[in-house]
Amino acid sequence: MNPKRELFATSEYYSGGGQVREAVGGTDIEISASLTVTMRVSITKDVFSPGNSALRDVYQPRGRCVAVLDAVVDRHYGAALRAYFSYHGIELIAMVCPAAEPDKTLRTAEAILEFLGVNNCNVARDEPILVVGGGVISDTAGLAAALLHRRTPYVMLATSVVAAVDAGPSPRTCVNGDQFKNSIGAYHPPVLTLVDSGLFATLESRHIRHGMAEIVKMAAVDELRLFELLEEHGERLLATKFGSVGHDEELRKVGDEVLHRSLLSYLRHEGTNAFEIYQDRPHAYGHTWSPGFERHAGLLHGHAVAIDMALSTTLAELVGWLPGPDRERILALSRRLGLAVYDPILESSEILLAGQEAMRSKRGGRALWAPVPRGQVGAVGYLEEVPAELLAEAVRRNRLHAEGLPGGGRGVDAFLDAKPIH
Amino acid sequence: MNPKRELFATSEYYSGGGQVREAVGGTDIEISASLTVTMRVSITKDVFSPGNSALRDVYQPRGRCVAVLDAVVDRHYGAALRAYFSYHGIELIAMVCPAAEPDKTLRTAEAILEFLGVNNCNVARDEPILVVGGGVISDTAGLAAALLHRRTPYVMLATSVVAAVDAGPSPRTCVNGDQFKNSIGAYHPPVLTLVDSGLFATLESRHIRHGMAEIVKMAAVDELRLFELLEEHGERLLATKFGSVGHDEELRKVGDEVLHRSLLSYLRHEGTNAFEIYQDRPHAYGHTWSPGFERHAGLLHGHAVAIDMALSTTLAELVGWLPGPDRERILALSRRLGLAVYDPILESSEILLAGQEAMRSKRGGRALWAPVPRGQVGAVGYLEEVPAELLAEAVRRNRLHAEGLPGGGRGVDAFLDAKPIH
Repeated sequence: MNPKRELFATSEYYSGGGQVREAVGGTDIEISASLTVTMRVSITKDVFSPGNSALRDVYQPRGRCVAVLDAVVDRHYGAALRAYFSYHGIELIAMVCPAAEPDKTLRTAEAILEFLGVNNCNVARDEPILVVGGGVISDTAGLAAALLHRRTPYVMLATSVVAAVDAGPSPRTCVNGDQFKNSIGAYHPPVLTLVDSGLFATLESRHIRHGMAEIVKMAAVDELRLFELLEEHGERLLATKFGSVGHDEELRKVGDEVLHRSLLSYLRHEGTNAFEIYQDRPHAYGHTWSPGFERHAGLLHGHAVAIDMALSTTLAELVGWLPGPDRERILALSRRLGLAVYDPILESSEILLAGQEAMRSKRGGRALWAPVPRGQVGAVGYLEEVPAELLAEAVRRNRLHAEGLPGGGRGVDAFLDAKPIH
Repeated sequence: MNPKRELFATSEYYSGGGQVREAVGGTDIEISASLTVTMRVSITKDVFSPGNSALRDVYQPRGRCVAVLDAVVDRHYGAALRAYFSYHGIELIAMVCPAAEPDKTLRTAEAILEFLGVNNCNVARDEPILVVGGGVISDTAGLAAALLHRRTPYVMLATSVVAAVDAGPSPRTCVNGDQFKNSIGAYHPPVLTLVDSGLFATLESRHIRHGMAEIVKMAAVDELRLFELLEEHGERLLATKFGSVGHDEELRKVGDEVLHRSLLSYLRHEGTNAFEIYQDRPHAYGHTWSPGFERHAGLLHGHAVAIDMALSTTLAELVGWLPGPDRERILALSRRLGLAVYDPILESSEILLAGQEAMRSKRGGRALWAPVPRGQVGAVGYLEEVPAELLAEAVRRNRLHAEGLPGGGRGVDAFLDAKPIH
């Protein structure tokens, strides 16, 4: 009745182990335990075409797919998604969920938990939920998956640029609270992230643009070749939505290479550090001061990041870490893509310094540890601290730089409004 | 300005690493990442006496201690706790929190998060929160700690028997939802668990008793010596609240040995499997059918567990895994401690079978995998499945057994009411 079987695994997606050290210091007992997660990221094409096996392979063995869909994405792709599962004879049970920034709350995560729970879908602890949409739904539904049975796998189908290269495969799920921007959450990466740039066709240009800021970020501090690709093709990728408009196959290929290189950079640093064990994170470039002023200034996230990148880059030059031409090269790429490089909010030194202090504390309180380009484009260094005078000098230089630009370096469509992203 | 420093650690309590495998199947990228947690459990004495350094050692370097206290515990020990920190010149900022079972909700976890958050205590991500109380506060505040900054360490000072040997060092934090008993949560063990059986003096006897069910559980399937200690001293430990009443130093020592052996058993299996990677869990003995009937029957948790243990033990005999005298030995220990061994709810086969099916699904849906004593007292085996007829036969045998007992085997003070546990 009970054949020898050493370990009855809870789920195929997670592994781990542990050790006991007895009687450490008298009667104390010390134990260590570890969790290992494995994630795959796949760039695919025509994800809803019947011949694409990516989703079928995951869900056919179970005969059903429980999905949480961003409401805007559902309007564009809901029919195609339903047709795909119907074609393959897989039952689809979908919750359509509003997913604008104000929806990123514990209330929304709870509503998703209700849907997944025992009286509704009764999702099992090893049944991967499908999450379809951009950064907000990946954060919120990802947190619901983290909390359900204390850890339930999910598959992320990323439909926005930010979700494709950053928020989608990100291990950092979260919601906002009254006191918390993004800081109620859990580390819980999707077991599979699917990226199909064909879905970018329905995105507004401004959302392609601000998403590209995250790609510029990875290029500038981690991969020169990616930076060169953006210099060469960035504007056309923006104009054609990564080749999805006009079905330009050559450009689609370039776009997929950009996405692949971005993802590889992201995963090399953030994927392997999924539990944020250390703060040596090149991808925090552009994210040291921007969390302090993004909401104050009403900026789209990517533009706030680009403004911070410009500031960080100038700091790198000021401390002698980056030659002037490399600084100019980074700023020039942002400008060509219509990303902001300056905002007058930088002159509110209280806001800037309070944000810096909050970030210092967030990173553990022992250093600011701000990533900036170092040595050349495509390489990183960490500024341990940034004195107020140095920061003010960098702001002054970027103000001068911006004053010489058409539009004052404020970027194209840089500000938030309430419109949906697709 | 930036000395070579490979890894700027987020927190001293957590470590980990990761790997990238590129171009797995074409353009796919596969990454693995791991998290390692280390936890210490310490049995201590007079934890609030100025000479006891356990809490001082953790909090003096920070100059403050942010604490969440069970409201009932605060009434008994709040003054001693405050005097302790005051003596050591450590600022104590405490939230007193109602912690009865109905308080174990996401609302309570949110209220704790508000207290810990930026506008109140502004707890840093590597600052260990102190949690003082029993199982409910450890589950609820533990979840708040798991969600704060996605993972914030906490120290658990266990004040009840259940918290001391099971819920306190448990990695399983959770709250209840409309649809979920304990299944909204996170794996997040305390970095340090302190156990001081002197605090048991203010517990009601019925809470000592039902807490002891969890010790019987570990003894019966994992440690014969612990079982023998309970046979020899269990009734006196119950009567004197582990020697805390009457200050019997000899008995206190025996009690501490019982707690130490219990903890070692718990940690060997549950501590090393903190992320519940596998379901080979001896400590799920007594927890296969009881979750299905505990609330229906209005039983205190430990009595529900004891009824399930008796049922599981009889099943072990029925399948030829356990000699009759060993079954009787386990039932006899429960009876001597006043633990229930039977409840008529077992005769509601729909409830019993629905609970079994829910547990089968909870354990991954591929087997029931019910731990039972196997071979002898102190060793475990797993029943892959339990057919309805076999289960009914075990119920019938236990009913007959109970009919011959004074009080029908229903135990002493086995039922829930609204009174606080201290």
